[in-house]
Amino acid sequence: MSAPKRSILTMNAFELADGKPDGLLARRLANVGAASVLFYREPIEMVSAKGAWMHAADGTSYLDFYNNVPSVGHCHPRVVAAVSEQLGVLNINTRYLNERTERYLDALKAKLPERLSNVVLTCSGSEANDLALRIAAKVTGDTGVIVTENAYHGNTAAVTAISPSALIGADPPANVATVAPPGRAAYGEDIAGGFRDAIERAAADLEAAGHGLAALVCDSIFSSDGVFADPSGFLHGAVEAVRARGGLYVADEVQPGFARTGSGFWGFEHHGVCPDMVTMGKPMGNGYPMAGLAAAPAHLGAFCADVGYFNTFGGSPVAAAAGQAVLDVIEEEGLQPNAERVGAYLFERLLSLAEGSGTVAEVRREGLFMGIELCRDGDLARPDPELASATIDGLRRRRVLIGAAGRFGNVLKVRPPLCLTLEEADFFADALGAELAVR
Amino acid sequence: MSAPKRSILTMNAFELADGKPDGLLARRLANVGAASVLFYREPIEMVSAKGAWMHAADGTSYLDFYNNVPSVGHCHPRVVAAVSEQLGVLNINTRYLNERTERYLDALKAKLPERLSNVVLTCSGSEANDLALRIAAKVTGDTGVIVTENAYHGNTAAVTAISPSALIGADPPANVATVAPPGRAAYGEDIAGGFRDAIERAAADLEAAGHGLAALVCDSIFSSDGVFADPSGFLHGAVEAVRARGGLYVADEVQPGFARTGSGFWGFEHHGVCPDMVTMGKPMGNGYPMAGLAAAPAHLGAFCADVGYFNTFGGSPVAAAAGQAVLDVIEEEGLQPNAERVGAYLFERLLSLAEGSGTVAEVRREGLFMGIELCRDGDLARPDPELASATIDGLRRRRVLIGAAGRFGNVLKVRPPLCLTLEEADFFADALGAELAVR
Repeated sequence: MSAPKRSILTMNAFELADGKPDGLLARRLANVGAASVLFYREPIEMVSAKGAWMHAADGTSYLDFYNNVPSVGHCHPRVVAAVSEQLGVLNINTRYLNERTERYLDALKAKLPERLSNVVLTCSGSEANDLALRIAAKVTGDTGVIVTENAYHGNTAAVTAISPSALIGADPPANVATVAPPGRAAYGEDIAGGFRDAIERAAADLEAAGHGLAALVCDSIFSSDGVFADPSGFLHGAVEAVRARGGLYVADEVQPGFARTGSGFWGFEHHGVCPDMVTMGKPMGNGYPMAGLAAAPAHLGAFCADVGYFNTFGGSPVAAAAGQAVLDVIEEEGLQPNAERVGAYLFERLLSLAEGSGTVAEVRREGLFMGIELCRDGDLARPDPELASATIDGLRRRRVLIGAAGRFGNVLKVRPPLCLTLEEADFFADALGAELAVR
Repeated sequence: MSAPKRSILTMNAFELADGKPDGLLARRLANVGAASVLFYREPIEMVSAKGAWMHAADGTSYLDFYNNVPSVGHCHPRVVAAVSEQLGVLNINTRYLNERTERYLDALKAKLPERLSNVVLTCSGSEANDLALRIAAKVTGDTGVIVTENAYHGNTAAVTAISPSALIGADPPANVATVAPPGRAAYGEDIAGGFRDAIERAAADLEAAGHGLAALVCDSIFSSDGVFADPSGFLHGAVEAVRARGGLYVADEVQPGFARTGSGFWGFEHHGVCPDMVTMGKPMGNGYPMAGLAAAPAHLGAFCADVGYFNTFGGSPVAAAAGQAVLDVIEEEGLQPNAERVGAYLFERLLSLAEGSGTVAEVRREGLFMGIELCRDGDLARPDPELASATIDGLRRRRVLIGAAGRFGNVLKVRPPLCLTLEEADFFADALGAELAVR
């Protein structure tokens, strides 16, 4: 069983163009070349978006179950207004004081574990994870890192090395060990014990190879591995094992953070563990480029003794305005309870679909983050990426945008905006039911 | 003569707080900890900004000669309007097609050398330089990099390693060689020949240590080294030497790009050389977080064969709107000729001041980027960082914001918005003249 290293669902523009590109696709290919990766064999030209819906140039409207950046809804008027207003007043770097940024940091910190009381704002989750790795290396004096086998933690040189899903036909470097994601396929019914043991073995392997353990870096919802949330608390033993060997636990909340998991504001809350560092990004500004890292003052202080860190755009008053508006909207519109309520409803509908399908091996979820694993005969040991790909194309024809995850690309990744209504949940479930019925 | 590794002009918040922080500074310290680096011993709380002026909470207005991000003027209404409008319509990633982004890329490419026809948009110059290093390593199969001795190329792990100015009391790793910046202090009257020879030696040293040459990475205006522009063309021999050894020349245009140098849109134009890659950032969106890399399709293609590259926020239609507005404003307001015209006027005034000062060893400039080197008795061999620091504090009292550069922090770095008027140039020259007169 070989793992496709480039997702079958995102197409390189050259592959798409088929020798005869025209129109906007041809321009894209000429402008971005080999770095141009698009969704769908026939890519969609988008012109506008609102709430949970995106509107294409041909007049088609799509329900967005894919994008977790516009998390409080596409083009949310509160965020647009806050950013627009601040852009016209002041947009500077953090080497001057400004009230707006400190007010935002106060509000963000109120959502974080008390001991992670220092926050560094950056532009991207990649920058935040890159910084987390360097802090972990400084604090521990080691460079070994454990990640899951299809993890994605960003696009810089350092974090690409801990992102097996980004490496095409290559393994991570020798200081990076991978473990299977915390699911039944790898660990049977004792996920917590199996995952902890796998991490123990990975740490021992790293040490044997001369790499002491610096960090376990985990996306708290394991989204690119295929979404794994249960049983609640399974991370606990793994984190204890990491700390016993002197390593730090970095919670990558770029995907699950900011209320998506419903039960908590952060994904790690589901497991009752307090990370040593938290990184965050994507939904943080609902599309305004911002991200961040929270750490204990002693850890950040140790790093800063060796090297200066300054981020030109990070922490500007405009970023703070965007971030504050996102926090306000989550609170005022009750998006965290909505993620739990609509998520629970959708989950029940998906479980019903799964029962009769013969192809849905498992539905996993927390809040409004779900993974629908498609397998031959519903057997977790026989992943079916072709079915996932065909279903994604079929759902597109039924006006739903969705993507896939997992090492084999066979898990439908459900990530709608947190403002999703029950009617929109039904729209998706109906479309998926109809799609699975014709396969 | 020892080099201060942390600039005396940016103060760590702990150093500032002096044990008894209060108000906004105390909050900043609590929120950002050791990563909180601020300008001035008594940091300024900013509340608004417009054109070339920034306004503090105490009612004081400052002429901004420091910040090269709001390059077409703080809070420029055209940029604010373009970003605000697009934010309310569509803000998505590049895995869907959208006309706005391709239109921007077409316009940006019209400013670039024809053979660098692929552009990857990122969030920060750091991300762009990080990617450039990886492309250079892939294309050449080597990892050796040459930079100037006080270079700054960004904040990720990979680019911090080629940023000697960010390393506190440490040298870059073994695959990174440094050369003195291209000035008279190091190379006398034959700057072009001396710089080329230094690069030859650095490349030979790298090779002897087992690191073949991947790239020469140069900020085309050498801003953190102290601003070096003349004689025009001095980069030519250096680049030829790099290519003779199989290395690539990466022009880091994060500081000089987007019309600041007056004679060209990019700093490298001054030297009549065509880079193998161009990276850009800071002024690109006038404060909207965006940056990019331009490369030849074959180079980008070689890199993308091994590893996926995707940037969540990079290349969104909002970034494209910001970038397009900046290009439009530069063109319609004639900011490139203005940079040349006002720059030439200011330069003449500074040369007059220098003559009588006894402390200004050299004034260097291209367009509206200048370096004013302060030395004891005007002797380049005796840099005077204390005078630079005192002058910066004095100029602040005279309502001008400016910073310092160079290995010794003794070069005043002149980087006003490109919309600077002759009157504003006089305001600065008068203030500097008065300040130098009392020292």
